[in-house]
Amino acid sequence: MATISPQSTRNEAVSSLSRAFGEKLLLSQAVREQHSGLEGHHTSRLPDAVLNAASINDVVEALHICAAHDMPLIAHGAGTSLEGNLSAVSGGLSLDLTGMNRILDVDPENMICRVEAGVTREQLNQELRHSGLFFPIDPGANATLGGMASTRASGTNAVRYGTMRDNVLSLEVVTADGRIIETGTRAAKSAAGYDLTGLFVGSEGTLGVITAVTLRLYGIPQCTMAGTVTFASVDDAVLTTIQAIQLGIPVARIELLDAAQIKACNAYSQLSLAEQPTLFLEFHGTEDGVSEQASLFGQIAKGNGGSELSVAVQVEDRNKLWKARHSAYFASKSLRPNARIWSTDVCVPIAKLADSIAATRADIERCGAQATIVGHVGDGNYHVLFVLDPNQPEEWEVAAGINERMVAHALTLGGTCTGEHSVGIGKRQCLVDERGADAISLMAAVKRAFDPQGLLNPGKIFL
Amino acid sequence: MATISPQSTRNEAVSSLSRAFGEKLLLSQAVREQHSGLEGHHTSRLPDAVLNAASINDVVEALHICAAHDMPLIAHGAGTSLEGNLSAVSGGLSLDLTGMNRILDVDPENMICRVEAGVTREQLNQELRHSGLFFPIDPGANATLGGMASTRASGTNAVRYGTMRDNVLSLEVVTADGRIIETGTRAAKSAAGYDLTGLFVGSEGTLGVITAVTLRLYGIPQCTMAGTVTFASVDDAVLTTIQAIQLGIPVARIELLDAAQIKACNAYSQLSLAEQPTLFLEFHGTEDGVSEQASLFGQIAKGNGGSELSVAVQVEDRNKLWKARHSAYFASKSLRPNARIWSTDVCVPIAKLADSIAATRADIERCGAQATIVGHVGDGNYHVLFVLDPNQPEEWEVAAGINERMVAHALTLGGTCTGEHSVGIGKRQCLVDERGADAISLMAAVKRAFDPQGLLNPGKIFL
Repeated sequence: MATISPQSTRNEAVSSLSRAFGEKLLLSQAVREQHSGLEGHHTSRLPDAVLNAASINDVVEALHICAAHDMPLIAHGAGTSLEGNLSAVSGGLSLDLTGMNRILDVDPENMICRVEAGVTREQLNQELRHSGLFFPIDPGANATLGGMASTRASGTNAVRYGTMRDNVLSLEVVTADGRIIETGTRAAKSAAGYDLTGLFVGSEGTLGVITAVTLRLYGIPQCTMAGTVTFASVDDAVLTTIQAIQLGIPVARIELLDAAQIKACNAYSQLSLAEQPTLFLEFHGTEDGVSEQASLFGQIAKGNGGSELSVAVQVEDRNKLWKARHSAYFASKSLRPNARIWSTDVCVPIAKLADSIAATRADIERCGAQATIVGHVGDGNYHVLFVLDPNQPEEWEVAAGINERMVAHALTLGGTCTGEHSVGIGKRQCLVDERGADAISLMAAVKRAFDPQGLLNPGKIFL
Repeated sequence: MATISPQSTRNEAVSSLSRAFGEKLLLSQAVREQHSGLEGHHTSRLPDAVLNAASINDVVEALHICAAHDMPLIAHGAGTSLEGNLSAVSGGLSLDLTGMNRILDVDPENMICRVEAGVTREQLNQELRHSGLFFPIDPGANATLGGMASTRASGTNAVRYGTMRDNVLSLEVVTADGRIIETGTRAAKSAAGYDLTGLFVGSEGTLGVITAVTLRLYGIPQCTMAGTVTFASVDDAVLTTIQAIQLGIPVARIELLDAAQIKACNAYSQLSLAEQPTLFLEFHGTEDGVSEQASLFGQIAKGNGGSELSVAVQVEDRNKLWKARHSAYFASKSLRPNARIWSTDVCVPIAKLADSIAATRADIERCGAQATIVGHVGDGNYHVLFVLDPNQPEEWEVAAGINERMVAHALTLGGTCTGEHSVGIGKRQCLVDERGADAISLMAAVKRAFDPQGLLNPGKIFL
């Protein structure tokens, strides 16, 4: 699809960009390496240049210059890129949006805010701290809201508050040909035309560049209670989760960490949790409501042999708990010197979660792979974090086999090949397996219609 | 965009269809009139023929024949069509899907079901009645689930359970060229590729024909409480609504009926409600939860001069209340002999709702128009039902002016030109005013990519 330019044209493109943007255009090896999407396990070329965009005008001009020179353009936020989503497979311009980090508008009466794409979720919640409101979507990393919209991020709170799909009301997008559009309104719902907002959310920068995001906010709950419950087996923890969801307990967070992950977290985050499969929980509501939820949940856990709920009473204890959960990636990484992590995810219908995790765990053990399992289990979504030696290609091959079988099994259960990491490079074949060639051809038709030159984040989503 | 065929080709198309479908193809004037999308206020040509599709094979074959003869095809459900959505502006084939009404699968463990497009919401809930589950989306009419997906329907429960956008997990769609695709999976969330499900939901049959729908289900709440609160003014009722939503009370239904509408409902549905602006309410939850919600709500209502909550204690009373609400359209129609109703809707950010309704009411009074106001006010969504004499064109012109000003004002408030009726013919210019020509050009690019011959429900959404 892409009409990638030869090096001579590429040099001209860089010269044009340099003339247009001066010091905002960075060419150093170090900065380009930082923007190569390497946090994941996918290898990458370096982008030819990095532009620190300061305004939407920069974005428009960059798109015009790239279009004129057939130069790929990769919008770049905080850079998590677990599936090679930011990899500059054909070089090109990495458009860094993290400098566009103004909070444009907080509208507490309508519980809506509008931010530039480079605002991070922590920055937003810091800004909101005196408003009584918060933005719940929390993928762990301190991601930018533009990046979170691009990958349809979700995370720990999604079981209660939904994903970016549910919480983005509108996007400001610059199209491949440099036009600025607004995809929605501030109304809570609309039946006006095709859902362009939903189309751009999760499109991984392949259809346009998101420059601003209008988001739903939520009232900070009157009461928040967090804690942990341990189980003899992952199965028991998962069964407890399934039953709690089926009963409609509106848990705000329900996160599974297997024994290996707890061990890693104890070491990395100086905790002293029992090294058993554990659910990290949070309940939001009125004081009575939270007690009711915790009590109902406790009964279900008990029925599955779980421990009593160990409540994190102080705010500091609660924060420590979630910080440890958010450090799971780095905790797993520290299990082995110089290890690299390959983090993959699937999502299955909730009642199939025990089947899916059990099969994957058995596969990991059978293969003798080193891996932890953590999951946003209330959504039926979990991650396998392979702890790998970068110099042992056979370990990577074993992990690839487990990943492939995990996805294939999830699909037979009615699940999806990725709950929140998105497709990038790594899940392109999985996407075809999941949706079928005809559905993918419709996605490709949208791609061609929006980006006929194929310059926006090429090599992603489509094989 | 459409390459509409001359009458000779049209006759050939009808012959081909007749050969292929025999008695399933209906040509009588009466049936074609029934399928002309006339329930709304838009005039229409008749379709050339009506096909009672019995299976997806019929749909595929119909699309092939229509494509071969440049024959428009209009997918048809229960036929509400408030904005001329089903109008056969260029004739063509009306593809009636109401015969495809099998419930394919109820999966209580995952709280998911799969139905053919012609299943109605009442049929589905009847089928679910012993399962402990229900499907909450309720646009009033006993619509088909395919039609509800096509128009991104919502209705009375949307304030708590969301709209069709939030509750369709996946769609089976036949494309313009007769291929069958599945847009999603059964997972609660997915980050796998473009959101085709979201793209087809609300596309009004212009991108493909929806043949089956996978839906989220919900546990029937342990406790349901319904009732009414009356107010001295619409403003007071709306302020109460705004404050309840801002406080995060999870009302399941919060419906405004103005005094004129209550009067109409009293007459039509044999009620004896005080003829004042009234909120119809429903709370879902545990017994304690419902009491807490009702008590909090009562305090807010009292602060705005509202009456005590008059609780519909018996199930029969509750059903009578909601039946009366659902009959609002016919109640308004009966206000005047031989009247026709023009029902229009807008949706604004919740805190702007009082402004929007007040401006519209003042405009109605200034113009001396006869109209009732009812609304899903918890979403910021309301309807004006103009009660018009079909033989008095000047009345329709006055209504058109009020509608135009209502939409224009809603857009200045950050709202949308339609919360749930969708664009059809009637809101095409409004859509351009709302989103801008560049955003519409992206929608049109999707339309061209999916339906290059322009045969699927032509003349809708796009001017």
